[in-house]
Parts: sequence; structure tokens; C-alpha cells
Amino acid sequence: MLESLKQQVLEANANLPKYGLVTFTWGNVSGFDKDSGLMVIKPSGVPYEELKPSDLVVLDLDGNIVEGDLKPSSDTPTHRLLYKKFPGIGGVVHTHSAWATSWAQAGKSIPALGTTQADYFYGTIPCTRRMTEEEVKQDYEWETGNVIAETFHDIDPVQVPGVLVHSHAPFIWGKDPNEALHNAVVLEEVAKMALHTYQINPDTQPMDDYLLDKHYLRKHGKNAYYGQDN
Amino acid sequence: MLESLKQQVLEANANLPKYGLVTFTWGNVSGFDKDSGLMVIKPSGVPYEELKPSDLVVLDLDGNIVEGDLKPSSDTPTHRLLYKKFPGIGGVVHTHSAWATSWAQAGKSIPALGTTQADYFYGTIPCTRRMTEEEVKQDYEWETGNVIAETFHDIDPVQVPGVLVHSHAPFIWGKDPNEALHNAVVLEEVAKMALHTYQINPDTQPMDDYLLDKHYLRKHGKNAYYGQDN
Amino acid sequence: MLESLKQQVLEANANLPKYGLVTFTWGNVSGFDKDSGLMVIKPSGVPYEELKPSDLVVLDLDGNIVEGDLKPSSDTPTHRLLYKKFPGIGGVVHTHSAWATSWAQAGKSIPALGTTQADYFYGTIPCTRRMTEEEVKQDYEWETGNVIAETFHDIDPVQVPGVLVHSHAPFIWGKDPNEALHNAVVLEEVAKMALHTYQINPDTQPMDDYLLDKHYLRKHGKNAYYGQDN
Amino acid sequence: MLESLKQQVLEANANLPKYGLVTFTWGNVSGFDKDSGLMVIKPSGVPYEELKPSDLVVLDLDGNIVEGDLKPSSDTPTHRLLYKKFPGIGGVVHTHSAWATSWAQAGKSIPALGTTQADYFYGTIPCTRRMTEEEVKQDYEWETGNVIAETFHDIDPVQVPGVLVHSHAPFIWGKDPNEALHNAVVLEEVAKMALHTYQINPDTQPMDDYLLDKHYLRKHGKNAYYGQDN
Repeated sequence: MLESLKQQVLEANANLPKYGLVTFTWGNVSGFDKDSGLMVIKPSGVPYEELKPSDLVVLDLDGNIVEGDLKPSSDTPTHRLLYKKFPGIGGVVHTHSAWATSWAQAGKSIPALGTTQADYFYGTIPCTRRMTEEEVKQDYEWETGNVIAETFHDIDPVQVPGVLVHSHAPFIWGKDPNEALHNAVVLEEVAKMALHTYQINPDTQPMDDYLLDKHYLRKHGKNAYYGQDN
Repeated sequence: MLESLKQQVLEANANLPKYGLVTFTWGNVSGFDKDSGLMVIKPSGVPYEELKPSDLVVLDLDGNIVEGDLKPSSDTPTHRLLYKKFPGIGGVVHTHSAWATSWAQAGKSIPALGTTQADYFYGTIPCTRRMTEEEVKQDYEWETGNVIAETFHDIDPVQVPGVLVHSHAPFIWGKDPNEALHNAVVLEEVAKMALHTYQINPDTQPMDDYLLDKHYLRKHGKNAYYGQDN
Repeated sequence: MLESLKQQVLEANANLPKYGLVTFTWGNVSGFDKDSGLMVIKPSGVPYEELKPSDLVVLDLDGNIVEGDLKPSSDTPTHRLLYKKFPGIGGVVHTHSAWATSWAQAGKSIPALGTTQADYFYGTIPCTRRMTEEEVKQDYEWETGNVIAETFHDIDPVQVPGVLVHSHAPFIWGKDPNEALHNAVVLEEVAKMALHTYQINPDTQPMDDYLLDKHYLRKHGKNAYYGQDN
Repeated sequence: MLESLKQQVLEANANLPKYGLVTFTWGNVSGFDKDSGLMVIKPSGVPYEELKPSDLVVLDLDGNIVEGDLKPSSDTPTHRLLYKKFPGIGGVVHTHSAWATSWAQAGKSIPALGTTQADYFYGTIPCTRRMTEEEVKQDYEWETGNVIAETFHDIDPVQVPGVLVHSHAPFIWGKDPNEALHNAVVLEEVAKMALHTYQINPDTQPMDDYLLDKHYLRKHGKNAYYGQDN
């Protein structure tokens, strides 16, 4: 079942090391099929190069495993919650990629400083608040999803497809697993450049709103004109 | 038509990822043929490894497409304006290479701090002013070229073959696509070293003018003596 | 003798350059066999790519060579002391990996700033005090082990499997050579991220204790639930 | 003639890009044969991957070309002077490697902060003073050698086999071309770590003299005990 989605999830997981986003097994990608309401996710702790389609775990958004012999990623509840709360997304990536994770550890959001970010994220990439002791001790991975959702109470997750979880690492999403992976690569790149930008000029101000609009909207939405499809 | 120039443009585009200057399709190279007044540029959003000569777009400097089925790079108007305003250049490169882009985001020019820069850039590599709302909203890519040209009102673009566009990224040029690519690699390297130089010593002063002269002029102009051709 | 352990030590040494932990021969891995009380270590100054099982040196914890024609690593006394003082470890890695070594040179311990560290190190990764002149001049490598042991007088080395030796570089360990190597990779990654974290936010506070507990304990000990084995 | 030395010079030049020390043709290696009083050097501006033994230039220390059809590296006079002034060296490397060059641009010497440096450099790696206008305008490359020699008036170049030329880049040497290349790699590594060390702890003090002695002398001189040859 869901062979096409499994293939996408498999490829996106395999591409995590290719793009330098993971060390060892520190990352996972899932995909969500809206029609069936089922998601496909990487099993826990299995090296990317050994992953086979049959290793992938299929489950519903309440966590019931529908197919698969291995345990799903321990981060599965976070993925589930994001699919529940953020309609319109079809892929979620979690990594400990080094630059984004440094911002997460610093507890700082990444302001939009230039067009590279603006081409993919329509503004600041937010960092969550610290999680409470209760959240961490009870249903930690599920509550990780909740604190992300809380952070996006006034942000459109389709327009800002990623977040830094405080003292932890990023979660990134997209319309499918490949777009989520793509956005994860962008996040890592802009996280790196944002630190260097502030090191060059500590007084750097965010980019102008009209430039942010221009770049985001030339690639997204009904007036997009970038690429061969628009 | 322009088969030789197409080959050069194709190779220079293919070399962007080889030199670590681009992520995904974040960059483009064009070439200009002075005799015919035509330019050749990468199509928009096509991965470098898939590019074929027939994918390249040929157009005149007013933007009329002469050959090619694909849409040219969305940055084409910037390239066109540079060829119009900067006589003597035959290749333009645009990337979001990480170190140069960090300087662009910081809104800072890169002073000449050492001989590496002096071998290719005869002085400071300038950063443009921020673009105005009007410039961004109307003919954005064309106005990007204009703000570059404005920045060079008192700088010789042949001697300083590159610029940082504020809150955006670099444009780099040369006598042909390959030299423009070469200069783009140099810019990225000196951008990286300039930040580290200031981190080592925040009070670093620019290099002495006579050392700048010595290095630039031993490689350029009638008294050059570097390499096998001089 | 100890063919299986030799194979593990050989592989872990060969993986040092693969993981970017060493330049030239700046690193060594050993393994300890509890039953026989013998350890296997890399010979001194031999390139990793030329290492053969027969090059490895077998010795007891008092330094008596039991097998091998080559001189063991000059750091052997440090490895010996660690196996003596830290029961439960079966592999030791020493490298001059660049980020961890920078912390060692700075004489600073690495606080637990996020879950990446918490997944492998149950708290701060300590830096030793400077060694005294007497320690350096007499039995230097043995005393290096002693100053490490002194640093762990109130830390469980199984829960914090690595240390920075002041003005020198890291030593890392684990239940076997491969786990020690794994922890060495983690140390390098968290050392890099910790510096960047403080550069992003100089006021960064350590992660909350309950989050540290959660992440360390979901991977270690009787209530672990990460991976396919738990 | 000098076929063995030519082979060494060829290999060391070919290894410059392998060790990440050069961009394009920004570096050169020479070797010196004490018996004949002749040196072998890379020709100017030729890519490393195209270099053949017959491309190498043989000349005496007064600059008279004895063999070779190509122009020698423009930095040849600096190499010549170093061989004249520093008896006991048989190989010289010049690169614009990024970390060492950043220190050179900052005009700062690299203090010995840890054992990695101490294993190869017996103390601080000095940066020259700025060159004067006269020195730059007349016999620039020869005067570069003179300012290096001046910097070493109270330093033993055999014990400190490298220098940073102010606003320029490093020169590194050794008993033969391969050792010079080896030291160039070490310099780049310690230059990188020294910056990070100060970023972690701006108050970092140099390593203790007795630790410097211990590490330098366990690898060099009559009491060395590192490696299989001691």
C-alpha cells in the first residue's frame, strides 16, 4: 500500500546524508497521504543506507500501526501532530543539522535577512519557547508537536515551513516529503548565513518587507513567475 | 547559432555546483557575444546536471528571445542591463554563495585586506544601497541592474568585477563566462577570509595601496608578468 | 589472539579519517578485552590506510607487550590508565579533531546546550585542569590519564564518555571501540554547535535538567525506548 | 637531472589541492638540492593536474635557469632567498590557504595554544611586519624573502618552519618538499583552531612552556620517541 509515498519517503530519507543534514541516524522523514489519512515514516535507529521500502512503517494519525514490522521513529508523535494541526502539508523532516540546531540551542528565531530566505520562508523562522517539565515528562514527542503548533498560532505553516524547537533542533515540512527535504536544506543554509551576517554586522536589520514580498511571491502563489511551470 | 558561446555558458553553469557556489538552482551564468549583440543564458529553475545546449536561451539586450523554448532565468533583466552598461564584459554570474551572500545581507562592502583579493579585484568589492520600494515593485530585476550600475558610477567594472546586492547576493562578471565564474570563486574565498580576518583582529586596516597596485598590476594590464602568457 | 577485537580496533582506526576526525596520523583507537585483561592499540605513526591486523600491538594494562613487532602509540599509557580506572569501558579514542581541540585549547568544558549532546553525554563534557610541570616531565602520557581520572572523581565515565585535556585534545571512550568512535563523532559535532550557539546568543543557558534526563534516558538504561532493540 | 627531486616537487604540488590548501593555481612548491645548489620549482600559472616533470623549472639560487621551457613561479625569488638564508631546509611551500591567510591579513602571529602546534612548531608562528613601499616596488618577491628572514632573526627556522607574510599569505618549509607540504597542512589546521579557541575563550593563554617542550621534543631531536623510527 502507498507504494508511491513509500518511495518518496525512502528517497527523502536517503537524501538526508547526501545534503549533509544528518550525522549517523539523527533525522527522519515522513510523508502523509491525505486520501487514506495514513502516514509513512522511517523506522527508529536504522541507518539510511540500509533502508528498504518494507522497513517503512505505515500508521494512522492516532498512532495505530497499519503496516510494518519495525518500530517507527521515536519522533513519530511529533510528525502525527503536525499533520493533524497543519492541513495542507504532506511531508515532515526532522534533523539535527548543525547550523539550524545551533539557533535552536540559542533559543533564537532566524529573521529574514535576505532573498535566500525570502524565496522559501515568508518571514522569520520561529524558535519555540522552552518546553515545561510537565510537557517533557508526559508524552514528550507529542507535546513537542503541540509547542510547535502553539508557536504557529499566528503564522501560516504553509508560508513558513519550518521551526526551531528550543534546546533541540529543527522540524521542517512541505507539500510532500521532497519539498520538506528541500526546505530543510534551505533552512540549514539560511541559518548558517544569518550567523555570519550578524558577525559581519551586528546591527544588521531585517530585509525590507517589500523585498520579502517580492521574492516570496515571485516563487509562490498565483502570481509566481519563477521556474518553467509559472 | 553562437554554439561556442553556448558551450561556454553551459560549462560555466555546470561548474557552479562543482565550485560549491550554489545550492539547488540558486545561480545562473550568461555570456554575451559583442558582434551579434546577443546573449545566452540559463533557463529558469532547471537543474545544472540536466542542462543541454538546446535548453539555453538566446536573446538580445532588449529582452527579445531569438532562440530557445524555455523561459530564461528570472534574473535575465539584470544580466541584460550589466551588458548594456559595462562595455567590455562578456560573462555574468549570479549566485547565492554563502560567504558573499552573508556580506550582502550585512550590507557591507569587502575592503581589500590582502593579496588574494588584490590579484583579481582592484580595491574594495562594493555593496549596493538598499533598493527602494518602487524599484522592487516595478521591474525588479532590471532595477537590480540599475542599482549595481549606480554603485559603479566611480568604479571601473573591469577592474572590480563583482558586487554585493544589498539583502540579496552577489553578481560577478568577466571578459567571458569562464572568467566571470573564476571571479565568483575568488569573491567567495575573499568574503570568507575577510570575515575571519576581522574576527582575528577587529582593528585590521586595509592593505597598503602600493601592495594592492603591485598584485593587481602584476596580473593585469600591459606590465603583467604572472603566468605563461606574459 | 583477540582476532575479533583486533578487527574492531582496525575498523575504528580506519574510520577516523572517514569521519573527518584526524589529519595525518593524529589519532588512535584501542580496545580492551575484559576476560584476558589485554588491550589492542594502533602502532605509533602508521598511516590508517596502511594498517594491517598484524600491525596492531597487544599489551596488558601494565604496559607489557604480549604481541606485535611495532611500537604502540605513544599515547598508550593514557589508554591503559583509563581502562584501569574506568571499569566498564572497552574502547578508547584519541584525536585532535578540530572543534573539540579548540575547546580543549580554550580550557573550557562544553555545557549541555541541547538534545544532541543529551542523547550521548549525560551533562557537561569536562575539560581537565592544566597539567603541572612535574606531571608533564615525568611519565607524561600516564599522568595525562591521571588528570582525566581526577576530573571524573564526581562524574560517571559511563554516562559522560569523553573529556577535553587542557591545551591538548579530547579522549573519548565507550563500551567497545566502535561506540568510542561514535561518541568521538558526537563530541566533535556538539563542540562545533556549542561555539556557534554562544555566537548566536552569548547568554545561552544550559538546557533544562528534565530535558537532559528525558533524552539521555530514552536512549540509555533500563527505560530506553529509542532504536529497534528497546 | 634531479629526477628524484623533480618527482618530489611534482607530487607535493599535486597534493596542494588534495589537502584543500589551494584554489585554482594559488600555490607552489619547490625543492632544493644541496649538493648541486639547484632548486626545482613549479612553473607560473599552470594547473596542478596538468603538471608534468618536464614542466618544472630548474634554476640556481641566483635565479639562472638551468633547465625548463616555462617561466618559473613568480614567487621564485622568495623561494631562492629562503634557501640562501635558511640552511638546512630543502622544500618551500607557498599557498593562500584560507585560515592561515586570514591570520596574515589580520597581521597577527599565531601563539602556541596546544599540542597540535607544539608537535610541529616550537612556539609562536610569526607574522612579518608590513612591507614598505620601496620593498614592494623594487624586487618585490625577493624582498618578501628578506622580510621573512628579518622576522626570523631570533627564531630558528628549522624549529618554526613557517611564517605569515603580512597582508599576504603563508610560506612554509621543511627538510624536503613533502615535509614542507606536511607543515603547510599543520599550519592551516592550527590557524583554524586558534581562531576558534579565542572565540570560545578570548582570555586564552598560550600553552605552558614545559608542555610545548614535551610535545616538540618527543617528535624532534635526539630524544624523540614518537613514530617507528625513534
